[in-house]
Amino acid sequence: MIERLAVVGLGLLGGSVAKAARVRGLARSIVAVGRRLETIEAARHDGTVDEVTTDLARGLRGADFCLLATPVTTLERMLPAVWAAAADGAVLTDVGSTKASIVAAADRLARERPLRFVGSHPMAGSEKTGYGVARAGLFHGATVVLTPTERTDAGALARVAALWEALGARIVRLEPAAHDRAVAAVSHLPHLVADALVDAVVRMDAGFFEVAGKGFRDTTRIAAGSPQMWREIFHDNRAALGEALAAFRKSLDHLEAMVAMGDGDALERELDRLKQVRDRLG
Amino acid sequence: MIERLAVVGLGLLGGSVAKAARVRGLARSIVAVGRRLETIEAARHDGTVDEVTTDLARGLRGADFCLLATPVTTLERMLPAVWAAAADGAVLTDVGSTKASIVAAADRLARERPLRFVGSHPMAGSEKTGYGVARAGLFHGATVVLTPTERTDAGALARVAALWEALGARIVRLEPAAHDRAVAAVSHLPHLVADALVDAVVRMDAGFFEVAGKGFRDTTRIAAGSPQMWREIFHDNRAALGEALAAFRKSLDHLEAMVAMGDGDALERELDRLKQVRDRLG
Repeated sequence: MIERLAVVGLGLLGGSVAKAARVRGLARSIVAVGRRLETIEAARHDGTVDEVTTDLARGLRGADFCLLATPVTTLERMLPAVWAAAADGAVLTDVGSTKASIVAAADRLARERPLRFVGSHPMAGSEKTGYGVARAGLFHGATVVLTPTERTDAGALARVAALWEALGARIVRLEPAAHDRAVAAVSHLPHLVADALVDAVVRMDAGFFEVAGKGFRDTTRIAAGSPQMWREIFHDNRAALGEALAAFRKSLDHLEAMVAMGDGDALERELDRLKQVRDRLG
Repeated sequence: MIERLAVVGLGLLGGSVAKAARVRGLARSIVAVGRRLETIEAARHDGTVDEVTTDLARGLRGADFCLLATPVTTLERMLPAVWAAAADGAVLTDVGSTKASIVAAADRLARERPLRFVGSHPMAGSEKTGYGVARAGLFHGATVVLTPTERTDAGALARVAALWEALGARIVRLEPAAHDRAVAAVSHLPHLVADALVDAVVRMDAGFFEVAGKGFRDTTRIAAGSPQMWREIFHDNRAALGEALAAFRKSLDHLEAMVAMGDGDALERELDRLKQVRDRLG
């Protein structure tokens, strides 16, 4: 049981954790730290949190568990202030979509003051954002990647894992750098590619959208995500994204060459191999 | 009302047209022409069709409306036999996913014998294929592209449009060549790209699929389509696909350059522009 849960940033992810923690009774009290009074007041008004503040130090005071749910770049900027304000022995985790940089920053700060940070990345976004779409069931069946290092406290890791599991998530552990390469491959690259697919149609003839069916809508749905959020994600993970783009270009060139060569049997074998890989994902 | 509807090829599309025509009483009798006895017997057994045959000439005899629903390449091979066997005055249409080549072939044959062919492309595929997944509601809300030329008979065009509209589809008209470019952009390119996205992850580390969420599954769903069918589509529409790939590469290079330049504001404006285009598709 968490005594006092501080949720910093009350968007889709932070708001959903707060709602789920409330519904499932995982914390004796919940405090929300936010920039916009309107949002945090809404969360107090609907009973999701007990206390709200725009003051980070005040929100973290006495909290034994802090969820940092601001955008990635804000998070890195505010981490020293979090470190200064958090209670002794507090467990800290985040929801950022890249991990190497934030985990390294936390490791550096932990040399000064031994707080217990564990990197989390819940793979449960949406093209919609904000507290208005937060919901207690968001993490049910979702994958949450935890990125402990050799410096990570085992007890803190267990508590963070237990929170996500209590929200219905499945835990995967990866090294921070492997995490960033993995999400570049399965999330950031597909997002950039979806944007490029939309742009390619505009380049050819925007009238062609007239015949776009379910396949096109499915393939490009993630291109409807928040530009503000994705600008930060692409920037923050640009190195791994570059590697993923290089792999993707090789794959695309290879497939195009197979189509151009006209060897239908070889192309069919290749498509069949990829279909089998894809089928396993459900 | 159709007197005798011949459906040649009883897969997902042909089977679904037959089922919908039966349910809605659009044809006095329906005959299925297929290669596999098992499939066509199933359609007779479940009451979808009145008559089945593996003999094309026998199936087309007396049919005033013929739906050609075999794979594209089979269709082009069999078109002369269809032309020879079809009844005088018959209206012919197809469901092929590329149109320039088949429409040109039909126009050539029509100089010899004036049958009335209209190219159709119902945008209502699925990653599943075969009569087993055919259903009367498949075309409800779907887009069907018709590709009349200046040689197309107006009465035949009206009858073909009326059939699809009776099945709940929305009609879009395009020139055959424009159709092929449009589907290259909104269907064939996204399919090849989805395959390349799956392959890129395998190239980097297949273990990364562990963290693939809903976004990746949505974006790559079409890669689970039939390799046999897509091999033919890619081959058949390779010229337009090449043009679409070139446009896509420009778009991807442009987006990658914006990420690399680190001009976050410019990148956000670009992502916002594409989000707005994508949002209009629903």
